[in-house]
Amino acid sequence: MSKKIQLGTKILSANEEYAQQNSRLLRDKGKHCLNMISSPGSGKTTILTRTITDLKGKIRIGVIEGDIQTQLDADRIRATKAPVVQINTKGSCHLSAAQVNSALLQIPLDSIDLVIIENVGNLVCPSAFELGEDGKVVVLSVAEGDDKPAKYPAIFSKSKALLINKIDLLPSGAIDFDIDKVKADSRRLNKDIKIFCVSAKTAEGMNGWYDWLIKTVRKSS
Amino acid sequence: MSKKIQLGTKILSANEEYAQQNSRLLRDKGKHCLNMISSPGSGKTTILTRTITDLKGKIRIGVIEGDIQTQLDADRIRATKAPVVQINTKGSCHLSAAQVNSALLQIPLDSIDLVIIENVGNLVCPSAFELGEDGKVVVLSVAEGDDKPAKYPAIFSKSKALLINKIDLLPSGAIDFDIDKVKADSRRLNKDIKIFCVSAKTAEGMNGWYDWLIKTVRKSS
Repeated sequence: MSKKIQLGTKILSANEEYAQQNSRLLRDKGKHCLNMISSPGSGKTTILTRTITDLKGKIRIGVIEGDIQTQLDADRIRATKAPVVQINTKGSCHLSAAQVNSALLQIPLDSIDLVIIENVGNLVCPSAFELGEDGKVVVLSVAEGDDKPAKYPAIFSKSKALLINKIDLLPSGAIDFDIDKVKADSRRLNKDIKIFCVSAKTAEGMNGWYDWLIKTVRKSS
Repeated sequence: MSKKIQLGTKILSANEEYAQQNSRLLRDKGKHCLNMISSPGSGKTTILTRTITDLKGKIRIGVIEGDIQTQLDADRIRATKAPVVQINTKGSCHLSAAQVNSALLQIPLDSIDLVIIENVGNLVCPSAFELGEDGKVVVLSVAEGDDKPAKYPAIFSKSKALLINKIDLLPSGAIDFDIDKVKADSRRLNKDIKIFCVSAKTAEGMNGWYDWLIKTVRKSS
């Protein structure tokens, strides 16, 4: 016997409905929300831990951590004392708006200004699922190569900001990465994208990102 | 009006059926096939171009290139004179067995010994779709961090070989990456996995990978 279920619009709209619910909840509370997306190992968690620490007293950040398995990233965020909710997708390649919805109900929204969702490490699938966020932030490590905007255009087209991370690896000359090419290719896809060249490890360039973050959060509250 | 289609088993088995067709075709021709999977920017294409060049006269390699967009990787393979077929998935996060089937019909199978499928840059989704290959090879760059087997266990569990790439970046001390931890975590998931620490850029460690590749291809022909 074959089972029949309704496909297409129904499945898509379930995610959309939750995304709209999340967006309403965040707007009602006057909270800003960013959805951070990158390949595995681009440095999202390191960017977040440094950002939370350096912006203490300026912006109160809460984190929703998306991972297929483990609590490793949530543990790193927890060490900064920021509120964090871990979602384990158990194999799924992206966060869904429904998962984010239940995380938003657990995170102490009244005591934070900004929710950052760290999506599953994947440069492809998460870009297709709206979570109710105000904007997406894409992270690209210089070790991944400068052809990524051309090869993975969706996420670069849809993001408000691009963080080019691990620039501390460039001076050794061991990595071929043309920052100007990445900037030009990203702006060809998305003329308004804000681009910050940073090292979350050494803190180089992080101030530009912090200024943008503070301005963006204040504008929305 | 809502549309109804049959889901679940039907959709899964369409991929399975093509995978079985691919497997039969390869077996009938006596050709070995590997499915190479990694995050974006781990160095799959650089590994392939060096492998093809260094193994000239020993193994004749053909490549099926999976990318969301662009012919960039196929152009790099083509420069080695190896036969290559590019598949652009136009947004899809993994290759399907049906796409590989049509590529296998285009590639000159009779004049090669080994087909390497370079999957879409994604450490998650491609691991769930069998393509009819004899084995999977996972690539992890040291720049991605040593927590990846724990966080993305599926592909490490299913692969015959792991290439830890970009080891030329380690001596500078700019990257924290514990090779022994990655080896131990990978072997906990998959006791038989072969692990090679390589730099496709400098050629360091590539001979171990070549020896394994030659042995594996000869065994199957």
